[in-house]
Amino acid sequence: MADRRPVGFGDPDGGTAAGPATTGTATGSRVLDDESMAHLVPERSKRGHKGSFGKLLVIAGSIDYAGAALLVCRAAGRAGAGLVTLAVPDSLQPLFAAKVVEATTMALPEDDVEEVDPEPALAKILDHDHDALVIGPGLRPSLATADLLRLLLTTPDEPPEGWPEQQPRQGAEPARSGDASPVVLDAEALRTLASADSWWTRVGRQCVLTPHAGEFARLRAGSGHDPTDDGDLNTDDDARAAAAAAAAGEWKQVVVLKGARTVIADPGGRLAVAPFENPAMASGGTGDVLSGTIGGLLAQGLDAFDAACLGVYLHGLAGDVVRDRIGDAGLLAGDLPDALPIGRRRLARLAERGRTGRRLGFGASRVAGAADHDAGPTRPDPAIDADADDPGGAS
Amino acid sequence: MADRRPVGFGDPDGGTAAGPATTGTATGSRVLDDESMAHLVPERSKRGHKGSFGKLLVIAGSIDYAGAALLVCRAAGRAGAGLVTLAVPDSLQPLFAAKVVEATTMALPEDDVEEVDPEPALAKILDHDHDALVIGPGLRPSLATADLLRLLLTTPDEPPEGWPEQQPRQGAEPARSGDASPVVLDAEALRTLASADSWWTRVGRQCVLTPHAGEFARLRAGSGHDPTDDGDLNTDDDARAAAAAAAAGEWKQVVVLKGARTVIADPGGRLAVAPFENPAMASGGTGDVLSGTIGGLLAQGLDAFDAACLGVYLHGLAGDVVRDRIGDAGLLAGDLPDALPIGRRRLARLAERGRTGRRLGFGASRVAGAADHDAGPTRPDPAIDADADDPGGAS
Amino acid sequence: MADRRPVGFGDPDGGTAAGPATTGTATGSRVLDDESMAHLVPERSKRGHKGSFGKLLVIAGSIDYAGAALLVCRAAGRAGAGLVTLAVPDSLQPLFAAKVVEATTMALPEDDVEEVDPEPALAKILDHDHDALVIGPGLRPSLATADLLRLLLTTPDEPPEGWPEQQPRQGAEPARSGDASPVVLDAEALRTLASADSWWTRVGRQCVLTPHAGEFARLRAGSGHDPTDDGDLNTDDDARAAAAAAAAGEWKQVVVLKGARTVIADPGGRLAVAPFENPAMASGGTGDVLSGTIGGLLAQGLDAFDAACLGVYLHGLAGDVVRDRIGDAGLLAGDLPDALPIGRRRLARLAERGRTGRRLGFGASRVAGAADHDAGPTRPDPAIDADADDPGGAS
Amino acid sequence: MADRRPVGFGDPDGGTAAGPATTGTATGSRVLDDESMAHLVPERSKRGHKGSFGKLLVIAGSIDYAGAALLVCRAAGRAGAGLVTLAVPDSLQPLFAAKVVEATTMALPEDDVEEVDPEPALAKILDHDHDALVIGPGLRPSLATADLLRLLLTTPDEPPEGWPEQQPRQGAEPARSGDASPVVLDAEALRTLASADSWWTRVGRQCVLTPHAGEFARLRAGSGHDPTDDGDLNTDDDARAAAAAAAAGEWKQVVVLKGARTVIADPGGRLAVAPFENPAMASGGTGDVLSGTIGGLLAQGLDAFDAACLGVYLHGLAGDVVRDRIGDAGLLAGDLPDALPIGRRRLARLAERGRTGRRLGFGASRVAGAADHDAGPTRPDPAIDADADDPGGAS
Repeated sequence: MADRRPVGFGDPDGGTAAGPATTGTATGSRVLDDESMAHLVPERSKRGHKGSFGKLLVIAGSIDYAGAALLVCRAAGRAGAGLVTLAVPDSLQPLFAAKVVEATTMALPEDDVEEVDPEPALAKILDHDHDALVIGPGLRPSLATADLLRLLLTTPDEPPEGWPEQQPRQGAEPARSGDASPVVLDAEALRTLASADSWWTRVGRQCVLTPHAGEFARLRAGSGHDPTDDGDLNTDDDARAAAAAAAAGEWKQVVVLKGARTVIADPGGRLAVAPFENPAMASGGTGDVLSGTIGGLLAQGLDAFDAACLGVYLHGLAGDVVRDRIGDAGLLAGDLPDALPIGRRRLARLAERGRTGRRLGFGASRVAGAADHDAGPTRPDPAIDADADDPGGAS
Repeated sequence: MADRRPVGFGDPDGGTAAGPATTGTATGSRVLDDESMAHLVPERSKRGHKGSFGKLLVIAGSIDYAGAALLVCRAAGRAGAGLVTLAVPDSLQPLFAAKVVEATTMALPEDDVEEVDPEPALAKILDHDHDALVIGPGLRPSLATADLLRLLLTTPDEPPEGWPEQQPRQGAEPARSGDASPVVLDAEALRTLASADSWWTRVGRQCVLTPHAGEFARLRAGSGHDPTDDGDLNTDDDARAAAAAAAAGEWKQVVVLKGARTVIADPGGRLAVAPFENPAMASGGTGDVLSGTIGGLLAQGLDAFDAACLGVYLHGLAGDVVRDRIGDAGLLAGDLPDALPIGRRRLARLAERGRTGRRLGFGASRVAGAADHDAGPTRPDPAIDADADDPGGAS
Repeated sequence: MADRRPVGFGDPDGGTAAGPATTGTATGSRVLDDESMAHLVPERSKRGHKGSFGKLLVIAGSIDYAGAALLVCRAAGRAGAGLVTLAVPDSLQPLFAAKVVEATTMALPEDDVEEVDPEPALAKILDHDHDALVIGPGLRPSLATADLLRLLLTTPDEPPEGWPEQQPRQGAEPARSGDASPVVLDAEALRTLASADSWWTRVGRQCVLTPHAGEFARLRAGSGHDPTDDGDLNTDDDARAAAAAAAAGEWKQVVVLKGARTVIADPGGRLAVAPFENPAMASGGTGDVLSGTIGGLLAQGLDAFDAACLGVYLHGLAGDVVRDRIGDAGLLAGDLPDALPIGRRRLARLAERGRTGRRLGFGASRVAGAADHDAGPTRPDPAIDADADDPGGAS
Repeated sequence: MADRRPVGFGDPDGGTAAGPATTGTATGSRVLDDESMAHLVPERSKRGHKGSFGKLLVIAGSIDYAGAALLVCRAAGRAGAGLVTLAVPDSLQPLFAAKVVEATTMALPEDDVEEVDPEPALAKILDHDHDALVIGPGLRPSLATADLLRLLLTTPDEPPEGWPEQQPRQGAEPARSGDASPVVLDAEALRTLASADSWWTRVGRQCVLTPHAGEFARLRAGSGHDPTDDGDLNTDDDARAAAAAAAAGEWKQVVVLKGARTVIADPGGRLAVAPFENPAMASGGTGDVLSGTIGGLLAQGLDAFDAACLGVYLHGLAGDVVRDRIGDAGLLAGDLPDALPIGRRRLARLAERGRTGRRLGFGASRVAGAADHDAGPTRPDPAIDADADDPGGAS
């Protein structure tokens, strides 16, 4: 195995003053609903080909957590991504090949059994053509994983530390802010960030972080906050919204704080809450489905906040579909991906009626009234629709 | 392979007088029905997360009996457990990884191919965070399996024999009565107990034993009883009830005597009989589904007797659902897990109507009448509802 | 690899005059219908356990023809067998383990990669508790396979040739006529027989041979007949019936000549024809499903001819169910097992009505009339019901 | 690894003047519809056996693109092929065995891990009994793959270059024009051709090429055309038709230019356009399903153009079936095969009504009117029905 330095985003020589982050303020969150989400559903050109709908690269899975990778891939496909590729350590590829029959697989170079070799792995990843990434679900905790994550996320003006003696290699440059594809960070990727100093000052990609309350608390602690100051992140909706908004502002990234009534916050101050409280969803693997859903939407070209909002919403609708069928317990995460298109179609039809209605001179309220399973007409939501500044690269 | 002493719970030097067990008396059993079972269904908090609904660790499966492990895991998930982990010998992990996509897997250290090394395996198991265990389905018969079982079940004041020369290792202490999670023992675990002297005097965990008639007879023989004294354990319901009650009393554990009209007995004298006689269920693997169901309910916090009763009942309802669809032959055990939520939902709705009804001033009979597919109103069942002494640790 | 003599059932030194076989005469065949088949469906005791419904051992599958083994196992389970075990060469066991989740697997000793070692394999098979066998689907053509088949089929009074120098080993005795379980012979097993001299004079088990027209012709040629004398075995129903009857009489075994309007013949002269002509069934693997179905019925205790007739009939009904759903092309053999219980239930209900009707004083015609999708009342069929001589061991 | 020359169909010493190809003229294309396609559906004899409906050999799949092979095989079976065999490099066979349970697998000899040895692989392929081939989906790009393809496609009067010193080996002769089975070329096979000089002058088999626009452009460039001269091959239907017709004429093969409104052209000038514009189909793996569908129809005896037209049409209908169920996004390619029989049955019923109608004296318009979901009666289509010259072997 190659000699490798401990993981660390921060400057090992100290001096990582993050400075006063421009914290987003939680001045009011919008509850996501069918109508506000409908117009986010990307229209799908009749002449589109699979490349038109985006390529997603998924870095996920290990021998202990193999299913997570499969859930991500299947969810991304059901969310409408054109092509999905799963990257795994070379020795694990036979385990994953053809398990999701539509996803291709890619072997990442190893320097030990089931352990990636970060630099050549990075080179292979950057050489692969993709529009978005999902990193983290089911990854094995290790220095190598953390190193690979750091290399993928850091900006080019902060060259990777630790290999100063190495010669530059083609294809191994860290991603550049301008051309780097957006990434969903989940699970092990979040745990890695939580122990990295001031990681948010060095990240050169648009990210969507999808922590549950426990992961969020660790990330906050890693940012120098006492998590207890955030209040009860499982049950207090106001506390959840405020904490997610503060974190999004500090980290300059979109934050999805999962749980009942999932919160989505972006660095520009946009804040949304999903209406779903479905105990059937409290089951292993449902988070993997969410990261795949958001990743699939990123690949289709949605911006990070929109992809996070719509992904959370479609995931919640899918959960409701399954709960309607089996009740509030016994849902398995593998039930969800196939239910994703049902919600998407519902929203797409609503959007289509909106477009038709407007063309015909009917107003939005008429359209919403036609969606008989909705609570009622809702106004177009300027808070969610409004353009925000690019929440992208920090520092 | 490590040198290893033959398995044995008892003191090999003799002197393990079990003494006259306080045998539970079968003074009358209750037949389980929708209403008595409905109120056992755990309410599911809308704000719950996957940790809220319990973590189950399953020690099951081998190359010859691989499917058993998968059936346990899938059943546990469908029974509502939040997280399920399957522990298997290291060399078998690739066989099981992602086969139940929502279950994670855990490699147990081996000292020979496909054979666990009991002590380090125990350490890894105890280091794993879980609320309940299922042990036995599809395990390979071996000294190592038996040793691991002994280590897991024995109480701390009876240190494992055979390794007196070893130094204490962190994490390898036998489970303590106070913090040890409850366990379902099935199949190979039962065969191991049947050949262990006075095992019930040393067990420091709450257990649910789920023998079929043949396994039960061997266990009884291992307890010094002539199984023929128990009568016909396949067809004589009175004999079955009496024998299960006697065994539960002697062993100080919950006993589920499987078969048509499954009997559930606890050491405190509670005795229940399931109403199901479904020949479609007489098919390989249905017992694995039962142990997973009970394990999933234990993980959700039900006490051992309640979990056993409700597990048997949901398992029986699932069998009826499948029989209604395909008839009384040709059921495959893999049909059952997906049918478990149907029964659970039915019971949960019945319970909900009960709660609503009472709030509104309607009596229980009114509620039961609303459940149109039930035979009719039944009185709340004090025999089953009554608290009993903790049936837990013996000796 | 062990030194091994070429395969051969016959005496390599000649002198195996088979003599003039008592050929069954095809004096008239009965067309199978719902009513005649209904009373063959084994009643299923409400108190039965999985052992009550039979244990089937399947010797099938290879790396090239892996799916065949899975189809056999799944079909047997859907046909109602209590337990199904798949025996495969040791190195292939990981490929098959848990692929049919309800079937257990058993490793047969090898003397080369993926190649069984016949004698120890036989010992392991005979040591396994089973009520019936299926041998052949997807087996790899090899001397070892042929040797194992010969050892399994030959009677004890004809000790295996070729190992005269060996000492007797416990458990390795050839099966005895009295206690040997019946066996379905298909595919590679039939090809082996076709090149064995006078194999039918040495077989000590009840067999059901399930050749298609091509395999049948090879078997006939191996019996010294010019297959062209049998006429067109694909399309001429009379020729098919006559040839099957003649072969059953000569071989003293039940013969199932597959194809459109499958023929079933036994050595005692019983002759039946299935009514099914379903081009959707002309698809790879449907024969594997048939052998599993018949094997599952043998394990449930039906005699060879009844199991063959009912198996062919249930298989045909399943094909009709699938054709009704998808049309006359595009059926995959894997569609069939799950459709088997549908036909069985239909027949079981018809039988139940018959029993009820008779008790109530209604005649059979009334019962058949109640089965609205049947062509009409049919008389009880004495030709099929009649007991015949045991078609068992030859010579 | 064997020493191997770079791939190349053309004479590496130059001089392969393809000459002025008889380019088919796109004087008008027909839009495929139910009626024109209905009469192409092969009638299925009630007495047919699996051999009657064709044997397909699929050369596809690699560790990175494993699912592609499975999609091809499943589609071919659902399209009605009698038997499907998947050939893969020896070391990958365990990955594919029993993944499509009805397909058998065949190991191709390797000279490196996961890399075929072209000559012995060719010998094994030619020794296998099959009626049609699919080559390309998911194949690993490599010299060995390209060599194998060249050997398979070249005609006997143009002996393979590069091994002049070798002695003739039985079974290793290149396929002869007279007896060579037709082949669908897709994906990696097309990329190989695109870099081979004048490949179309040397191919001795009837081929159906199934490029998408990008693959088509590369093939055109490889034929010496500037792809930009062909216009916009994604969205301009006239340009697509003209280019496909020109290519079919030059290459003397059937060309299927995939995408919305897929074009099918043959060298004789026949030109057809499918009416489907379904964005749900723009998803990874749908092309693999198409090549399997066409391959399955070739195996059933349709000529290359008819198989291509009907395959494209059934594939499109299947896509519409799935879209009707889930909407215009989220289709996974694995959804399609099971929907293929639905379209086939619809067409078969329409054809049956046509035959019945004609027998009864009703005209075609009456028949089409009975197909209530069709746009309306359409005239029999002479352009598509007309026999054309054998589009087969070039030069």
